[in-house]
Amino acid sequence: MNKSLKKPKVINRAFDFNVVILAGGSGTRFWPLSRQKKPKQFLKIIKDRALIQETFRRVSGLVPASQVYTVAIAQQSKIIKKLLPKILVRNVLVEPEARNTAASLILATASIYLKNPEAVLAVLPADHYVSDVDRFRQKLLAAARAAHQLKKIILFGIPPVSPATGYGYIHCPGQKVGEIQGESFFEVQAFKEKPDLPTALEYLQSGEYYWNSGIFLWRADVFAESLREFAPELFSAWMKVVRCLRKKDSRELGKVFREIPALSIDYALIEKISEALMARGDFGWSDLGSWSSLYNYLAQDGECNAVNGKFIGLEARNCLVFSPKKLTALVGVRDLVVVVTDDAVLVCHRDQDQLVKELVEKLKKDSPEYL
Amino acid sequence: MNKSLKKPKVINRAFDFNVVILAGGSGTRFWPLSRQKKPKQFLKIIKDRALIQETFRRVSGLVPASQVYTVAIAQQSKIIKKLLPKILVRNVLVEPEARNTAASLILATASIYLKNPEAVLAVLPADHYVSDVDRFRQKLLAAARAAHQLKKIILFGIPPVSPATGYGYIHCPGQKVGEIQGESFFEVQAFKEKPDLPTALEYLQSGEYYWNSGIFLWRADVFAESLREFAPELFSAWMKVVRCLRKKDSRELGKVFREIPALSIDYALIEKISEALMARGDFGWSDLGSWSSLYNYLAQDGECNAVNGKFIGLEARNCLVFSPKKLTALVGVRDLVVVVTDDAVLVCHRDQDQLVKELVEKLKKDSPEYL
Repeated sequence: MNKSLKKPKVINRAFDFNVVILAGGSGTRFWPLSRQKKPKQFLKIIKDRALIQETFRRVSGLVPASQVYTVAIAQQSKIIKKLLPKILVRNVLVEPEARNTAASLILATASIYLKNPEAVLAVLPADHYVSDVDRFRQKLLAAARAAHQLKKIILFGIPPVSPATGYGYIHCPGQKVGEIQGESFFEVQAFKEKPDLPTALEYLQSGEYYWNSGIFLWRADVFAESLREFAPELFSAWMKVVRCLRKKDSRELGKVFREIPALSIDYALIEKISEALMARGDFGWSDLGSWSSLYNYLAQDGECNAVNGKFIGLEARNCLVFSPKKLTALVGVRDLVVVVTDDAVLVCHRDQDQLVKELVEKLKKDSPEYL
Repeated sequence: MNKSLKKPKVINRAFDFNVVILAGGSGTRFWPLSRQKKPKQFLKIIKDRALIQETFRRVSGLVPASQVYTVAIAQQSKIIKKLLPKILVRNVLVEPEARNTAASLILATASIYLKNPEAVLAVLPADHYVSDVDRFRQKLLAAARAAHQLKKIILFGIPPVSPATGYGYIHCPGQKVGEIQGESFFEVQAFKEKPDLPTALEYLQSGEYYWNSGIFLWRADVFAESLREFAPELFSAWMKVVRCLRKKDSRELGKVFREIPALSIDYALIEKISEALMARGDFGWSDLGSWSSLYNYLAQDGECNAVNGKFIGLEARNCLVFSPKKLTALVGVRDLVVVVTDDAVLVCHRDQDQLVKELVEKLKKDSPEYL
């Protein structure tokens, strides 16, 4: 029996399309806005909606709300229910503890697998930004169809615009495997660890390398099969998780979950698969890795200051201002990131914002009340 | 009868020594801390006391509290009474309206004249800073004695440390007129308007020019006599004010006061006197003309950041941080002034803080709620 036939509300009836929003994770690179209890996905950084709300809106209409899932630990799931009231409570999948993305996605995929083994999942990190949403939706739908038809794990590679050393790269010289709804799918030749700068420059110049976006699509059964073939240890965890979910034995599930190796899905599975496919993620993607990455996504004034909040400038240029409540005045300065929150202010050179992480380490020792 | 004999608490009994704190005036150069209703003299900029409180402390013990006066309009006098509870209520002289310092000092000097025509007044602006307080007290006492004995108007000239164009200058080549308590008093040759930069450089290099500090000393009767001789129009106002005070006719006083030309005491009188004397004000004086002038008066950390408040820095140097309540974090920046108040934040290059005035003009149009 084809389960998708039982869901007339699914916009695309040919297959069962689900979205899993990876909503766990914590981060400090958006300090002072991001705090231990308020990681990036819950922040209203670009618009007046939290990034996870933006992520949800990005797929609404594409899949019905009843087929959107989130996966995170209990504390975060509470916030998620408040921020995303349209998501079914049973779709807010609660991890017994934070154990990296391999465990999260075994839990999410197994949950959907029990509904329909052929269901397709699109895995979306909750805290990314996409500027061309229409294009993203078209491409995501095509990729979901490809995942369904081609029975491969699909991933989006982002055409690099700089020799970034903070991403894993996908080597994809352009061997086209198929085309679906006008979208091409290419053979992935290799996965590369985060490179050093000279290597990243080579990658950029070659035109054959893409940033690994962390956006994946797979059929639940294909995911299980891939685990069996390429990650046997995780496959045995998968079997146990499926059994617990089927028996609704949440206590046993907790135990099983805590035994899953705490690995990223990239490292644990994706990079080991022989036949993953890649689509080009040319839809204005950003993982918003730091404050200055916001610069291009906020409205700019005549002096190229990108502003979210209340701002007045005099002889101020190329600055990023995030100051939703207080008035921030910049005078005679350039290339600064200025962030104003209720209890703290950050002023940072735009080229130095990778140091914010180090600053947070310093705060851990000196002023933990600001974490 | 020598009035000073009646006041055994006066530390120096040879003459009647009074201090008048010029507490009026408004300013915008310390925005966002200074606001229309909270001018600089009422701000806690350097220490945890307002500048006017520091000014009062600077003379306490030198003259008894009962001989310290303030002069300001009613609204400001309310604040003064709160900030300086030790000052006698009758010594908080209330101006019927703000009419610049000539009017303020006619009122203050006349009030003291009626007590004792030979009383000496030291006129101190409420919003200046002095780093070497002991030296200041010694010099002020010597100057008061000189004002008493020599019957001249005495002023303090500040040995310039830069070719500042924001001050009036005193030309004083070093013609010594007298020495009292080890302090030399020199003939003033001329007063000079605020110079342009080349002229200021000449002044600086010559060694014969001093900044006019706005700190004056005079006997009440000498002040009156000087008005009679050099500013006849003001002398007639003086006579009227004395009469009103004697009659305690505050209504008439209001009328008379409002008719006094709204001029600075420098322009109206001091610059016209033929025989003013100058003492060297080498006691670490600053008029705290702008945020960056604070830099040298705050404690500095190992990276030369001068801080008043909560601060954490990483690769940050030569910055001035004023952030009494919120944590301010500076990362990878240099030479900035950062000021954080309850409702606004200023980030300004240290060399550009003269633009803050212009910024406030812009605020008048755009966001008057921040004035």
